Amino acid sequence: MPHLIEEEKELRMRKLRRHIEEAQADACVITSCVNQYYLLGFVFDGYLYIAPEEEEPLLFVKRRGAESARYRTVSIRKPEQIAGELRRLPKRILAETASLSYNAVVRLQEALGGAQVTDVSAALRSIRSVKSEYELEELRACARIHDEVYAQIPRLYRRGMRDIDLQIELEYAMRKAGSLGFFKTFGENMDIFMGSVLTGENAQTPSPFDFALGGGGLSRLLPLGANGTPLIPGNTVMVDMAGNFRPTMSDMSRSFAVEHAPDAAYRAHEVSLDIHRAIAGEAKAGTPCCTLWQIAEEIARAHRLEEFFMGRRQQAKFVGHGVGLEINEPPVLTARSREVLQAQTVLAVEPKFVLPGIGAVGVENTYVVRESGLEKITLCEEKMLSLQN
Amino acid sequence: MPHLIEEEKELRMRKLRRHIEEAQADACVITSCVNQYYLLGFVFDGYLYIAPEEEEPLLFVKRRGAESARYRTVSIRKPEQIAGELRRLPKRILAETASLSYNAVVRLQEALGGAQVTDVSAALRSIRSVKSEYELEELRACARIHDEVYAQIPRLYRRGMRDIDLQIELEYAMRKAGSLGFFKTFGENMDIFMGSVLTGENAQTPSPFDFALGGGGLSRLLPLGANGTPLIPGNTVMVDMAGNFRPTMSDMSRSFAVEHAPDAAYRAHEVSLDIHRAIAGEAKAGTPCCTLWQIAEEIARAHRLEEFFMGRRQQAKFVGHGVGLEINEPPVLTARSREVLQAQTVLAVEPKFVLPGIGAVGVENTYVVRESGLEKITLCEEKMLSLQN
Repeated sequence: MPHLIEEEKELRMRKLRRHIEEAQADACVITSCVNQYYLLGFVFDGYLYIAPEEEEPLLFVKRRGAESARYRTVSIRKPEQIAGELRRLPKRILAETASLSYNAVVRLQEALGGAQVTDVSAALRSIRSVKSEYELEELRACARIHDEVYAQIPRLYRRGMRDIDLQIELEYAMRKAGSLGFFKTFGENMDIFMGSVLTGENAQTPSPFDFALGGGGLSRLLPLGANGTPLIPGNTVMVDMAGNFRPTMSDMSRSFAVEHAPDAAYRAHEVSLDIHRAIAGEAKAGTPCCTLWQIAEEIARAHRLEEFFMGRRQQAKFVGHGVGLEINEPPVLTARSREVLQAQTVLAVEPKFVLPGIGAVGVENTYVVRESGLEKITLCEEKMLSLQN
Repeated sequence: MPHLIEEEKELRMRKLRRHIEEAQADACVITSCVNQYYLLGFVFDGYLYIAPEEEEPLLFVKRRGAESARYRTVSIRKPEQIAGELRRLPKRILAETASLSYNAVVRLQEALGGAQVTDVSAALRSIRSVKSEYELEELRACARIHDEVYAQIPRLYRRGMRDIDLQIELEYAMRKAGSLGFFKTFGENMDIFMGSVLTGENAQTPSPFDFALGGGGLSRLLPLGANGTPLIPGNTVMVDMAGNFRPTMSDMSRSFAVEHAPDAAYRAHEVSLDIHRAIAGEAKAGTPCCTLWQIAEEIARAHRLEEFFMGRRQQAKFVGHGVGLEINEPPVLTARSREVLQAQTVLAVEPKFVLPGIGAVGVENTYVVRESGLEKITLCEEKMLSLQN
């Protein structure tokens, strides 16, 4: 995969520096893989220290990575050594308090002489949510592979499979096509493995994790997704595997009928496509996020499908979300959102219906928000195809 | 997979309650998947609240899981609603401050009227490190599958493969054998996907993550493990994939020669087996952890292999670690450890050598510490087998 070009990294760093100045902070300390990668193009074990008074960032490195020689680097064993390397101690620092552990933040704070700490996670997530054309090119390349893998699904199906069997075949195809396997989610306890395949009753099993749909999972340690349910003719299969073929990810779901599903399933699937068309007709830079939720909910209601919308026993309160280096980025398309779409934000829109005794139906696509509308990024067949052999 | 038996859960909860009393805390709040699973047998989105004055734990549930009806449960939308449900506010609480985010801990603290917060992560990791016979049965069942999957490795090899190609075949075999895929690591930024396959020069590439060996990885977002290096005759391949076929995991590495490796590789591999025999001859309940490091280092030194021990350009400072619900549990076998082995602790011992131009060699086994010695759990062939066809 190509490395981040220099001007791209500079642009990102400039946006962060603007935030640091607006927040009137003396320094910003970045430790998460996702944000180190976003700002530097690589990950290291240590503290990326950015101060408004310094032109260049400073890397305090605990365990040397392959790449850190390109930046001003200070080797340390522990954060308590940072203070001695600074011209002056910061009074106010920004740190990733939404993802970094309490112990790590408190230790950093004490190491810097009791500096006041404010969160920078939210600001970085907001900065990351607006993509450059370089990132969008990456995203399109990612989605092309995602499309190609999904196109294999009818060939991967064998009569008698369980949900997990189909998922394993898909995982194998994804890895052979370059999936990194691992991907990042934001939030406490958002565990997932490569994605989700749901069929039959399992589609309405609640999960403790805040993804769009649930599923019982294979273990009580990971209660999400496929649980070993057989793929039975007449049921549907919802495939929602992460498109992590590039660091900037695509998110896409497609639904399939095992042989042939009841008419109600095809109708609800068409309603999902109606919602996509209605959202694509409305959304552009400046559209309130809550409007997209309202459009989706109104169409679901007009078809008397509101009680099946975004789950059945447990209903998700969003119909879409940002996507990028993490699978769940801002904005979130909810009824109460006060956010407005910004140009070059990447959105996964996923109106889904869970039909008891049948499974889940609907489509998820990844779009780029443009000044004049949405650019669709995930392009593979949206019809509910049949799985049979 | 079988559910946790009731008496097992009660035993675990009793150990935690003893710690809460010793710490003179008014309550303990558990939010992580790993510890909720350990104590309850399932995971939910919310706060497991344990107070010495209450006989039963209380579950404050934000997003209902399938199972929480078995316990006293209060539905909440946000942690600020907890206080109103308590007879009295706790002055001192224990929380998982080593894994929970700073924001989440501060919010919980404020929601409980500014309670003083002390870490319970370390105590729970210590409690979890000593396994019951029930867990050891699970572990043995897990290791049997781990053994069977590794026995397939020579058949999975094809001439012309890269490291990642072999890893993908192994992942596929693991998933078909019941691997959960996902597994937990402890610590900030300890990203990994199913395990690691290292060959040739890549075995000495440093990684920012604190695993035993490194590797460049396929993306700068995940700098660890296989990086696409071809499997070349004369090089070695180190396979270290997680045994997560049960919640209580086994950890095992085996080394292979692509066709035939140089004599130095077989000799170093034998030294790893010597270290295993020497450690197995010494370790039992009561042995200091640092002694095991010293044994390993002395044997490496006696064979003039110290500069290749546990890495080359970057050397890990441990020769083993606990393993269980997380792949890296206490104790850690380091030179400076002050811990002493306890009976029924599960240890992964992994003396490895990284040979420039060849790759890594050595064996990792999982053992149970017994009063009289070590019980070996991972049993598949330890010789450096040849990969050829």
